[in-house]
Amino acid sequence: MAVAELSPSYSKICLHSSQVSFSIRLANHRRCALRPSPRTRSTRISCSVAPNQVQAPVAVLPEDPNKKSDCFGIFCLTYDLKAEEETKSWKKLINIAVSGAAGMISNHLLFKLASGEVFGPDQPIALKLLGSERSFQALEGVAMELEDSLFPLLREVKISIDPYEVFQDVEWALLIGAKPRGPGMERAGLLDINGQIFAEQGKALNAGASRNVKVLVVGNPCNTNALICMKNAPNIPAKNFHALTRLDENRAKCQLALKAGVFYDKVSNMTIWGNHSTTQVPDFLNARINGLPVKEVIKDHKWLEEEFTEKVQKRGGVLIKKWGRSSAASTAVSIVDAIRSLVTPTPEGDWFSSGVYTTGNPYGIAEDIVFSMPCRSKGDGDYELVKDVIFDEYLLKRITKTEAELLAEKRCVAHLTGEGIAFCDLPEDTMLPGEM
Amino acid sequence: MAVAELSPSYSKICLHSSQVSFSIRLANHRRCALRPSPRTRSTRISCSVAPNQVQAPVAVLPEDPNKKSDCFGIFCLTYDLKAEEETKSWKKLINIAVSGAAGMISNHLLFKLASGEVFGPDQPIALKLLGSERSFQALEGVAMELEDSLFPLLREVKISIDPYEVFQDVEWALLIGAKPRGPGMERAGLLDINGQIFAEQGKALNAGASRNVKVLVVGNPCNTNALICMKNAPNIPAKNFHALTRLDENRAKCQLALKAGVFYDKVSNMTIWGNHSTTQVPDFLNARINGLPVKEVIKDHKWLEEEFTEKVQKRGGVLIKKWGRSSAASTAVSIVDAIRSLVTPTPEGDWFSSGVYTTGNPYGIAEDIVFSMPCRSKGDGDYELVKDVIFDEYLLKRITKTEAELLAEKRCVAHLTGEGIAFCDLPEDTMLPGEM
Repeated sequence: MAVAELSPSYSKICLHSSQVSFSIRLANHRRCALRPSPRTRSTRISCSVAPNQVQAPVAVLPEDPNKKSDCFGIFCLTYDLKAEEETKSWKKLINIAVSGAAGMISNHLLFKLASGEVFGPDQPIALKLLGSERSFQALEGVAMELEDSLFPLLREVKISIDPYEVFQDVEWALLIGAKPRGPGMERAGLLDINGQIFAEQGKALNAGASRNVKVLVVGNPCNTNALICMKNAPNIPAKNFHALTRLDENRAKCQLALKAGVFYDKVSNMTIWGNHSTTQVPDFLNARINGLPVKEVIKDHKWLEEEFTEKVQKRGGVLIKKWGRSSAASTAVSIVDAIRSLVTPTPEGDWFSSGVYTTGNPYGIAEDIVFSMPCRSKGDGDYELVKDVIFDEYLLKRITKTEAELLAEKRCVAHLTGEGIAFCDLPEDTMLPGEM
Repeated sequence: MAVAELSPSYSKICLHSSQVSFSIRLANHRRCALRPSPRTRSTRISCSVAPNQVQAPVAVLPEDPNKKSDCFGIFCLTYDLKAEEETKSWKKLINIAVSGAAGMISNHLLFKLASGEVFGPDQPIALKLLGSERSFQALEGVAMELEDSLFPLLREVKISIDPYEVFQDVEWALLIGAKPRGPGMERAGLLDINGQIFAEQGKALNAGASRNVKVLVVGNPCNTNALICMKNAPNIPAKNFHALTRLDENRAKCQLALKAGVFYDKVSNMTIWGNHSTTQVPDFLNARINGLPVKEVIKDHKWLEEEFTEKVQKRGGVLIKKWGRSSAASTAVSIVDAIRSLVTPTPEGDWFSSGVYTTGNPYGIAEDIVFSMPCRSKGDGDYELVKDVIFDEYLLKRITKTEAELLAEKRCVAHLTGEGIAFCDLPEDTMLPGEM
């Protein structure tokens, strides 16, 4: 195998081709891509640029050649951040994988990640973008726009259609990509088709991701997708898997604020219980407005019981109708919120919702499913479930319903979680409007 | 005229209808909208919510009722930010107008403005969104997504199709909306159709905007649109009008970095001279890489002279081909960069490009056009042109060509700038690829 031999004064090595991944051929001909990736055998081709063309005092060769496979454009350079005055105090670079990277949610999210808005102004990041064969050209387009944005913190961008390659060494995996439901497809069919994707991605995470990777599943049906992913990644703590219910939480806060005539920052302690579906339970019993129980502030309890939940859930559908597109921007914002809630300490007395693993939960919710519950974090990436919540009959009845649904979904994907033969008895269609 | 009489313990007053603007009727029925707007006579209807329903210790009635017309949803509340612990140290709220607010560039930009990423974490903002009758429903969708994003700094959102209403009291006007070129339309036709929009918007800015409003024109052909807008706003300093060439600057930096094999943050002093069109001049004579003149770092001068400019200009076209959409995300990033360059001090020895008014320029460029030139700012919203730049024959020749084009464009819109009868002799199509 030929290995690149470059003196430090030449910075770059070039293009290759591989069997599984695509190599990027843009007008720029100086690309690095040292092969093979951990799973795919492929040729290493390396070449230097003409020595008289460039001076690159900053860029240095990667220590581990495998780390730089499938990089894109300017992001193929490697940096000794400790060698530079401006970047010396930065944290160690972290790898963040994003699936469905060519989609609209990602088109908002990636730029937020790269700008430093999520992980802070001293956290350099590497983005590893997972797409499909069909979306690969679009992935290149996304990477080009990231180049043109000149984000100082964005130090690497890789694009690939191979989850094993993308998830190698990642500290965060944001799993946004999922197949949309085809015409006439039942929820069971959707569970199966997406479940297979998340089973594969779980295996890939298990094989190569950081042992402490945090996995946030956005692609629907996200709770059960997260369960499938987790079950296929036995070497990663179950606690590290999340299903996104933060957009529901944000919408619920906004609707309570609107009803109460206060700004949304006055609403706290908002829990979404259960499944990210129409059985979800936005909890107005424990939520607070200006520190007071919601029911003391909003006296229209009929509205709370009969209209509030529907308002939260119909939001996506109303939006599609008005705007002609699904709520990509606010979904991306809620993903940012969800990540920030894990990397910054939760404000005293407050909490946030996330779909997490139920085993060991203090609420008596069935074990071994992924269920949205109230969480607090010390800002270390981990969380604990909140103990001081109250229940009444109305809340419990609804929690039982969403729990039953998630148990049914689990039976429906038993073939994907290694628990025998699937049996599907999903009673009704519970996809949220606007998320078909 | 009935005026709302509300005791401080009830926060909200309700829905109205008006002749010109739309009132927003969503499920939420508590909306404030005190009329009339400065230009439109319309009815004021005010009503209070049932007193036993809400407690709203924070929201207060607007001092000037006109200020709250056409507000959206939760953003109809008004706040005494000085009364609260968390917001006491915040700056005074600023009004930011965005036209083309339902479009894709805005869909990225608005969330950046609202998140605090542009004006900082202590700058509350009001967004005033200008759309068309056709896009009004989409504007509502955008406003809904802004609600659901719970941005603490975003305190007001208004949506309207009336520029006079939208531009009232704004400190920033980001003019993104423009008509795309129809099939078979010449550049002259595009200049005329968009020129009319920008003439009207100039008049509206002149009528009601802050006397120190900063106007950034993004809609194409942006230089001449900016000139038209400026000429129709004689009471606003000509210096306050900008045409966006920052995406060109960013792309030029990236291409030089790629060629040199260095990270893009090593490229500085990048000027785009002239028009945001194919006659634009990305200046590699004055630009620097790691503090050295580009020509000392990139020895392939043939590439600089023959390929570099084309690479910068073709970027948008390549992107559309790959990604299927135009470069909305990176355009929005470049708008953020352009604003930030005016509100933060320019780093020592560096500069940025902006399309600004030429009268009084030190380079000998024809007066009375909007021309991209190198600028520095103290961070006060204002700028000065950089004096220590050098020219060679090659650079001057190209500057002369883009200058000639802008002078021709100016003659072509004389009817819109109050300078007589238009005469169009635009020699060729110089729209940038991907911006048709």
